[in-house]
Amino acid sequence: MKFGIIGAGRIGKIHAANVAARADCEVRFVADVDAAAAEALARATGAAVASIDEIVGSAEVDAVAICAPTDMHADLIEKAARAGKAIFCEKPIDLDAGRIRRCLEVVKATGATLMVGFNRRFDPNFAALQARVAGGMIGDLEIVSITSRDPGPPPLSYIARSGGLFRDMMIHDFDMARFLLGEEPIAVSAMGSALVDKAIGEAGDIDTAVVVMETKSGRVAQISNSRRASYGYDQRVEAHGSKGMIRAGNVRETTVEFASAQGFVGDKILNFFLERYAAAYRGELDAFVGALKSGGRPTPDGEDGLRANLLADAAYLSWRTRQRVAIA
Amino acid sequence: MKFGIIGAGRIGKIHAANVAARADCEVRFVADVDAAAAEALARATGAAVASIDEIVGSAEVDAVAICAPTDMHADLIEKAARAGKAIFCEKPIDLDAGRIRRCLEVVKATGATLMVGFNRRFDPNFAALQARVAGGMIGDLEIVSITSRDPGPPPLSYIARSGGLFRDMMIHDFDMARFLLGEEPIAVSAMGSALVDKAIGEAGDIDTAVVVMETKSGRVAQISNSRRASYGYDQRVEAHGSKGMIRAGNVRETTVEFASAQGFVGDKILNFFLERYAAAYRGELDAFVGALKSGGRPTPDGEDGLRANLLADAAYLSWRTRQRVAIA
Amino acid sequence: MKFGIIGAGRIGKIHAANVAARADCEVRFVADVDAAAAEALARATGAAVASIDEIVGSAEVDAVAICAPTDMHADLIEKAARAGKAIFCEKPIDLDAGRIRRCLEVVKATGATLMVGFNRRFDPNFAALQARVAGGMIGDLEIVSITSRDPGPPPLSYIARSGGLFRDMMIHDFDMARFLLGEEPIAVSAMGSALVDKAIGEAGDIDTAVVVMETKSGRVAQISNSRRASYGYDQRVEAHGSKGMIRAGNVRETTVEFASAQGFVGDKILNFFLERYAAAYRGELDAFVGALKSGGRPTPDGEDGLRANLLADAAYLSWRTRQRVAIA
Amino acid sequence: MKFGIIGAGRIGKIHAANVAARADCEVRFVADVDAAAAEALARATGAAVASIDEIVGSAEVDAVAICAPTDMHADLIEKAARAGKAIFCEKPIDLDAGRIRRCLEVVKATGATLMVGFNRRFDPNFAALQARVAGGMIGDLEIVSITSRDPGPPPLSYIARSGGLFRDMMIHDFDMARFLLGEEPIAVSAMGSALVDKAIGEAGDIDTAVVVMETKSGRVAQISNSRRASYGYDQRVEAHGSKGMIRAGNVRETTVEFASAQGFVGDKILNFFLERYAAAYRGELDAFVGALKSGGRPTPDGEDGLRANLLADAAYLSWRTRQRVAIA
Repeated sequence: MKFGIIGAGRIGKIHAANVAARADCEVRFVADVDAAAAEALARATGAAVASIDEIVGSAEVDAVAICAPTDMHADLIEKAARAGKAIFCEKPIDLDAGRIRRCLEVVKATGATLMVGFNRRFDPNFAALQARVAGGMIGDLEIVSITSRDPGPPPLSYIARSGGLFRDMMIHDFDMARFLLGEEPIAVSAMGSALVDKAIGEAGDIDTAVVVMETKSGRVAQISNSRRASYGYDQRVEAHGSKGMIRAGNVRETTVEFASAQGFVGDKILNFFLERYAAAYRGELDAFVGALKSGGRPTPDGEDGLRANLLADAAYLSWRTRQRVAIA
Repeated sequence: MKFGIIGAGRIGKIHAANVAARADCEVRFVADVDAAAAEALARATGAAVASIDEIVGSAEVDAVAICAPTDMHADLIEKAARAGKAIFCEKPIDLDAGRIRRCLEVVKATGATLMVGFNRRFDPNFAALQARVAGGMIGDLEIVSITSRDPGPPPLSYIARSGGLFRDMMIHDFDMARFLLGEEPIAVSAMGSALVDKAIGEAGDIDTAVVVMETKSGRVAQISNSRRASYGYDQRVEAHGSKGMIRAGNVRETTVEFASAQGFVGDKILNFFLERYAAAYRGELDAFVGALKSGGRPTPDGEDGLRANLLADAAYLSWRTRQRVAIA
Repeated sequence: MKFGIIGAGRIGKIHAANVAARADCEVRFVADVDAAAAEALARATGAAVASIDEIVGSAEVDAVAICAPTDMHADLIEKAARAGKAIFCEKPIDLDAGRIRRCLEVVKATGATLMVGFNRRFDPNFAALQARVAGGMIGDLEIVSITSRDPGPPPLSYIARSGGLFRDMMIHDFDMARFLLGEEPIAVSAMGSALVDKAIGEAGDIDTAVVVMETKSGRVAQISNSRRASYGYDQRVEAHGSKGMIRAGNVRETTVEFASAQGFVGDKILNFFLERYAAAYRGELDAFVGALKSGGRPTPDGEDGLRANLLADAAYLSWRTRQRVAIA
Repeated sequence: MKFGIIGAGRIGKIHAANVAARADCEVRFVADVDAAAAEALARATGAAVASIDEIVGSAEVDAVAICAPTDMHADLIEKAARAGKAIFCEKPIDLDAGRIRRCLEVVKATGATLMVGFNRRFDPNFAALQARVAGGMIGDLEIVSITSRDPGPPPLSYIARSGGLFRDMMIHDFDMARFLLGEEPIAVSAMGSALVDKAIGEAGDIDTAVVVMETKSGRVAQISNSRRASYGYDQRVEAHGSKGMIRAGNVRETTVEFASAQGFVGDKILNFFLERYAAAYRGELDAFVGALKSGGRPTPDGEDGLRANLLADAAYLSWRTRQRVAIA
């Protein structure tokens, strides 16, 4: 399977390297407005540099990986869909639900295959947790708790065009909640504030938030987000059910523990998302390639991308209006 | 210091035994409508059986411990306050905020000392956590997360007169949140349902709930409750701040761990609240006696009891109306 | 059951308090050469002060707890045995195996009941581990590993008359190894040195030691001792068998864990043996009283005391001669 | 840097893949008596098949990785040393110390660079532990404890030509002990037996063993080995010193933990050495390539290989003769 990589930045490099490392795949082309970046990634993966149009138009390309800036995602998906390419697109499809819907109509009309990059579903820890929940290990699921804290806030310039904490950061947790709940949330209530950096608040965003949601059958979920965690990239999931509780925790830098008069000290947790989720990115690609090979449809798909976005919109509205918000 | 124990049930026995075990205190009288229960507890603690009026009226009694049914608490507090006794009262003061307020006016007018039995503040784990948070270990507090799950639901007969999950069970967590937050919550949003037992739902109550709260400065708190946890009495607290995160976990039955082809198996957590909180009940009494001896005012006091109740009322209203509720 | 407590020091106080706290027992007399100490302990437990001869000669006394200095143990056991008292004696019976043997002949001849205070068998963690091993949880036992480290060395004056590390400190681990192995060790090899304090070495003793032992069927055991552990009183046991591994760990001061840029910090382990083994001392008394009430023989008994001492002697010899030593 | 891989079996594949994955290295040739194996590995790594003599004689080859059977190691090292190649050789150099010494003389005479594959030094957990010990974190080192248990015994055919448990399995632990102790052991005492499989005993070997060692300054070390661990590949190291204790533990399959009425269940530890030590094999190659590039000498070297072997010989002798054995 031959890939065109659109976007040679941090995440593009990850996906390109994972494609190149597979015996059954190759990176055929790399595109980026930054010619040097495209050239470097092409060289590293044995690919050629090309324009987006060349990639999408090439009969040699089976699939595209869209790793360009968010505001290009929907256009690129539509272009690739119309060209008959299988599409892997980084989250989100777009920050605007209306735009996402129009994009998905094109995808549907063309019959294209679209997978959206909610990588955490493929983290070995969370994937194992979800499989055990789905397999009945905890009985009937009742409560989902998700904790997600970044090591530090992104630059203010990023904040400004990010869509805000709910659409940029917590969207991963909304997807994780849906992944685990097995039902759609019907209501969201959000609280939050700018405690990490006042400038984030002045930019109209928040950096600290908690959300609760419920489903029709009465399952409840809670999410906690912070843009800062001094101890690393804090990523935890817990599910509680009629037969027990299951949780997946963080990954430490090493298993070393030191004991002294100050107590027992363990290592920090992995700090960098590309390291923490290295296996998840590989697993995500496995799922994409595996589905294409078997003729199946990979998940999470465009609908999953839309629904996570709708939950983020509802949370944003709840936070803004200080009201609980029902999901249509 | 001589105590009169009012109520010789499960919790009365705990407090009486703790009083009797102190070198500086003794149980002078025990009262209970169940004469046999009163007699047994009096015998075990070297006390005499007496009526409530005899206890309150006795010049030998310095302090009363009110361990009677909830609907008697406010009346007993007022009676003891007027008699000039120091008062330790099990939570809650009453299920009705208006009744609590009237009771506290009597306490105030009489100048009586009143401590309310939110025992978890005195759990060595939670007390250490709170002390470290208050001491600045995690910097500015931002997020409080409280998980509280009972091993199993109480009898339906108890549910019916309990005041409901928010006032009966989560009230401990509201107090813990206040204890940690250092600020009053200004808004509450609650979701919940009857997932453990439909009969609880038919009785108008719930057994599964999540709540979020925020304070004026933007701190946020989340609480998760279930009336059932197959793995024991799940009691956890976590606080996140600008300099780090701190948490206090459960206590295992033993430290034994078994490893086999099925993985690593640790013991269940302590299942019974009287065992889990045995040290907390002793610490609570330490605080009460210590304050009286030093001429100070023990906390949590009546105001704390009222405020936890108001949060429970707000959560109940939020759940009922499906609206976020502001706290006056 | 009425007890005479011989010795009102640190360990005598523990046993006296545990006796006094039982509904079915009482402390009748306390003896100590230090009259003030005897008086204080008698007052605290509702007992009377008496001489050793008065205690042993009193018809009111059912059992004696020998908490006097080690060099009095054997004489006191013989005296109490001849007086027909049930005997609980702190470890060791004596530092000299020949003296122990003669003492046990007297015990045997009189038919007296003698329990020796290897308290760690009654620690809830180690007791649970042993019960599970004995119950077959790990299949056939193959390897026992015991780690035992004191928070800090005792005074040199104590070292001098202690019998040395093997007989004073590791003797507990020899007993624990026997308790778990279910077979007698047939060979011991010991290495050790004075690393914590050179003065200990100059006094002819060591403060750091490792020992290996094997049984006839080929089971092996290893013990590690240090007279100093900066992180608390380190007490761990691990057993490995055909079906798995089981271990019992230390007890932390609290369950609180703090995470920051320096990593995850948990509390120290309990530092003081009286606190760490508080439940063990109670459990030991339960076993003694329970056996007497049921007409059974409590363990560990005199033979257990002797065998642990013989292992300590062999380890000492191995260390001294730099040879492996066979056990007769 | 161009490598010739000698031996295309399980471990040869690992090293070849790690070489091929580096931007600064390539696999130039692969040799194996099994032509199909050589061909497959050459294809996977973009190399050519060659004979051993062709590899050693090729001007294109900078370094050889000796992954052939143990009885060929010494001959291959000598051949490669004389040809001026840098040499990475899997442990052990030989099962016979005399043969190792003669081999090392050739290495010395030729000035060749030789690194021996004690991969565990490069495990991120053990490497971090060693660095912290060497950096003074625990003060003066006093006790080293190493636990090493294989998931299951190798085939009897392997046992027969393995050199026995001490030279085949515990040799890794002897190297680890030397790595940590910072001093040479001067005495060894070993005990062991065939408990996992009687056939291993009938073949003259053992499958369960414990060893103690001491150094001139009085540091002590203990090692525990079993050829079977139902719960995975158990690899732990602990070091105790004047300022504290440090340990490195196992790696779990995932961080998932399940809590139910049966307790808390965590995943098994990684079961397969190639998975457990994947990062160690990469780190080992980093060290080899890094040393060559910088003109330094990689460690562990031939002398380390010899010394681990001498300890294994001494342990074997100790086990055989039931005597403690001094190291010359």
